[in-house]
Amino acid sequence: MKSGSKKPTWVVDKERGERREARETVWLFGLHAVRDALVNPRREKLRLVLTKNAFDKLEEAVATSGMEPEIVEPRRFDVPIDPESVHQGAAVEVKALNWGKFADVCAAGDGLPLVVLLDRVTDPHNVGAILRSAEVFGARAVIAPKHHSAPETGALAKTASGALERQPYLKVTNLSEAMEELKAMGYILIGLDGEAPLTLSDAVAAADKRPIGLVLGAEGPGLREKTRETCDHLARIPFAGAFGSLNVSNAAAVSLYAATRG
Amino acid sequence: MKSGSKKPTWVVDKERGERREARETVWLFGLHAVRDALVNPRREKLRLVLTKNAFDKLEEAVATSGMEPEIVEPRRFDVPIDPESVHQGAAVEVKALNWGKFADVCAAGDGLPLVVLLDRVTDPHNVGAILRSAEVFGARAVIAPKHHSAPETGALAKTASGALERQPYLKVTNLSEAMEELKAMGYILIGLDGEAPLTLSDAVAAADKRPIGLVLGAEGPGLREKTRETCDHLARIPFAGAFGSLNVSNAAAVSLYAATRG
Repeated sequence: MKSGSKKPTWVVDKERGERREARETVWLFGLHAVRDALVNPRREKLRLVLTKNAFDKLEEAVATSGMEPEIVEPRRFDVPIDPESVHQGAAVEVKALNWGKFADVCAAGDGLPLVVLLDRVTDPHNVGAILRSAEVFGARAVIAPKHHSAPETGALAKTASGALERQPYLKVTNLSEAMEELKAMGYILIGLDGEAPLTLSDAVAAADKRPIGLVLGAEGPGLREKTRETCDHLARIPFAGAFGSLNVSNAAAVSLYAATRG
Repeated sequence: MKSGSKKPTWVVDKERGERREARETVWLFGLHAVRDALVNPRREKLRLVLTKNAFDKLEEAVATSGMEPEIVEPRRFDVPIDPESVHQGAAVEVKALNWGKFADVCAAGDGLPLVVLLDRVTDPHNVGAILRSAEVFGARAVIAPKHHSAPETGALAKTASGALERQPYLKVTNLSEAMEELKAMGYILIGLDGEAPLTLSDAVAAADKRPIGLVLGAEGPGLREKTRETCDHLARIPFAGAFGSLNVSNAAAVSLYAATRG
């Protein structure tokens, strides 16, 4: 491109953002998470740092990956992760997985016609546990906004217990637009809300075997106004106790169970 | 007692154990957990250590408790908790809560005729989340063996999000004996087992409105042989996915939901 052909600022910004995203990498750690990443051919891996001890345990996975590990002394294990992380002498630098197009995954991906949408759930432990439950119940995808969501960190990978490598975790620019797209595909969107008059099982029954999107908000703030308005139904998990509310990952597991019953 | 009247060794051991238990205290930390403990009149509290900042936030709860806090400088916050704990400048030394007799709580306690039994689930975060879910679904008690279970630590209290003060968490000497006692009270015991032919909802239906005990094992080992044998039914949560299994706190939430439906 000639230097004379000036691009509009928004194009420059967009391209800069895309380049930044392409560069962005994350360090996964812990024997389990590192093994899962090594044996996943779809996972782009950049650096592998292991102690001798960890290498002995991961030898097969390392061979599968074809990577050349950097073997280090335990006390010289110097990778950019939280110093409190239980890394077990194993860390791998990776790129975020590319799950393909939102529409393709949700309309015709593997698994049941069932997705989980997370409205600003930022805690990596909760999102990790939700990915794990989503995989177990056979959901097609977990969907979250690009901003204000949990990044694919080592902590998330560890809680997901392998599911991060297998369960599509899709980041969208605008959650309510993604919800509209899902509705156009035939999805019925059920937002979880403790105050809703409808129960979860009644909402699932009302969906009448159509694809279901379960929409969960963060503990405390719950669903944002725009998100609530875009749902087809708001539904509550019926409780007998007078106090408290479920942790968001537990609410997700219960919802996935309710949506897949029958 | 005269020194001549020798007690048998087992009596001496038992009494020593009881004295040790009576002495045993735990430090709860974090604004939320400390506030909950302060306002709980049933909670025996020994020492309260606060920064000035935390005191300002907890002033009302401190007044309710009638305790005299030790106000310390943030950098001199020296209590025996994990140095990585997010204590927010608040810690209180307490004794374990006394929930009363096992038989009384399970036969006629508050809440639904529904209990959760944990077979060697030792992770405090999981047990904290299970206490929280048990409270939300109105279960009468969470029951665990005295040994090989999660102690009432600050980490557990924090994950329980207040439920530790309100949800009976009963420690029993022998889990299978406790299970037999529950059966004698009319409880139907359903052990969660991914390989069981019966589904959870069929097992709940088979219980036919009788009191239900949900029995969950630790991730990995699952239920011990003796525990499995003592259950009335083994049941599985039906999954669509080919991989993985639920985290134990998520399995507990799903089971509680299934048991309270209808």
